[in-house]
Amino acid sequence: MTSLFDVIERWDETDNGATLKEAEEVLNLGDVEVLAPLRGRDVLAVGYNYKDHHAEFQNTGIDKSMSGDLPEYPVIFTKRATSIVGHGHPIYTHPKVTSKVDYEGELGIIIGKGGFRILKEHAWDHVWGATIINDVTARDRQGMHKQFYIGKSLNSHCPMGPYAVHKSNLDFNNMSILTQLNGQTVQSQPTTDLLFDIPTLVETLSMGITLQPGDVIATGTPVGVGASTGRFFKGGDVISVSIEGLGTLENTVEDGDGAGKVSQVREHRSEV
Amino acid sequence: MTSLFDVIERWDETDNGATLKEAEEVLNLGDVEVLAPLRGRDVLAVGYNYKDHHAEFQNTGIDKSMSGDLPEYPVIFTKRATSIVGHGHPIYTHPKVTSKVDYEGELGIIIGKGGFRILKEHAWDHVWGATIINDVTARDRQGMHKQFYIGKSLNSHCPMGPYAVHKSNLDFNNMSILTQLNGQTVQSQPTTDLLFDIPTLVETLSMGITLQPGDVIATGTPVGVGASTGRFFKGGDVISVSIEGLGTLENTVEDGDGAGKVSQVREHRSEV
Repeated sequence: MTSLFDVIERWDETDNGATLKEAEEVLNLGDVEVLAPLRGRDVLAVGYNYKDHHAEFQNTGIDKSMSGDLPEYPVIFTKRATSIVGHGHPIYTHPKVTSKVDYEGELGIIIGKGGFRILKEHAWDHVWGATIINDVTARDRQGMHKQFYIGKSLNSHCPMGPYAVHKSNLDFNNMSILTQLNGQTVQSQPTTDLLFDIPTLVETLSMGITLQPGDVIATGTPVGVGASTGRFFKGGDVISVSIEGLGTLENTVEDGDGAGKVSQVREHRSEV
Repeated sequence: MTSLFDVIERWDETDNGATLKEAEEVLNLGDVEVLAPLRGRDVLAVGYNYKDHHAEFQNTGIDKSMSGDLPEYPVIFTKRATSIVGHGHPIYTHPKVTSKVDYEGELGIIIGKGGFRILKEHAWDHVWGATIINDVTARDRQGMHKQFYIGKSLNSHCPMGPYAVHKSNLDFNNMSILTQLNGQTVQSQPTTDLLFDIPTLVETLSMGITLQPGDVIATGTPVGVGASTGRFFKGGDVISVSIEGLGTLENTVEDGDGAGKVSQVREHRSEV
């Protein structure tokens, strides 16, 4: 097994992870670049999934598609695979494209067993575990292009990690999202406040779409984004997102765009 | 080279295709399932890219994000990789999820050389060629979920093909999209009517996003979609999209959802 995608896809063969061997070589964290746990497929993401965030966002006028009412159905968009980076990787400001880059701390759910038309009551059987996502967003682009894709997908704008944790080590009823900007708390809300809970998201997504092992669902961000105060990222900002059992995903904001360099994202097409 | 992704990625090594060998085995078209030429990555797509289609769509009330005005910037969304099917594959009606499945005949541009911040004047250097896309859409879902992703991504809702054709064999100034429903013409418009032309789309997409070899951009649909008359797909409908030099992409509508069966879509992660 060469990557976490393979491990998740063949989880049954590992006796729930018990037969996985620890790596023989132990690396010093300071010596390596930490990559995102799952990088290779566009990330599924949910908009307006906390009530107070929905309210704060309506006031920004960025998204004209929502009336003042809470969403009746989950609002689903994606973040491009090439935007995914790991813990510690710079978040670029892309000054030629946007002047309003913002954070969104989120719980990311990792699909284990793929499926189609997964009912709520079976949804947890299809969840492998979780990770943290910072759903970084270029607010001006999010509005200008109407559909969110471009504003959500600039290079480096999907920090993920630092770990992927199996659900057996997690208590989904006792998690909160804590986002800190330069050490100051800007978001702090329990994930039990989700408007559409995890089983509902899995059911809704899979009702006409086949979910696959390793799919990641960023479940939405709590109240407290920069767009509500007009304070956007500046070079040197340190942004961290912490969730119980999932650690802390920390990234530093860097002026520039990274010159387009992204890790290789290619598809395994042997079966097609 | 095992797939068209590889061929496109290593096009330089083939002396512009000249050193590619014809297959030794010739298969009878009737004996094989024709797969989509590029299947493995979410497809980039453009909304409201023909003036008359923008006008007809405003009247449907499906998308509340647009005012009556033409889009100032390209509206970009994606179609999920698992929704891609080939010429001849059934398009499912997904009756448990939607009652309003509709066609959208489109020119699909295939990226050859990847790139970042590609200026309009260099855009054609990054285009490998083209194919046909039927941007099949569940109209009710497109509106219900605000963002288009779910309504654009149900299984079988991205027919692509039948061929991928290199640009050297195409005249992009003399192409029209001809869509026929049960033999009757429903869309017929030259692609020179695009509001945002191909160089503009490549420049816009790549301004903060790294494009990759094999990326496909569905460039938008002309006037004449079913949503404007309220005539949606029924089982047995035959829908075809033809474009000069690209052949005809024909699919038959089938009641049901195909039980979630999709060809394997996995990532090649050897470099990560």
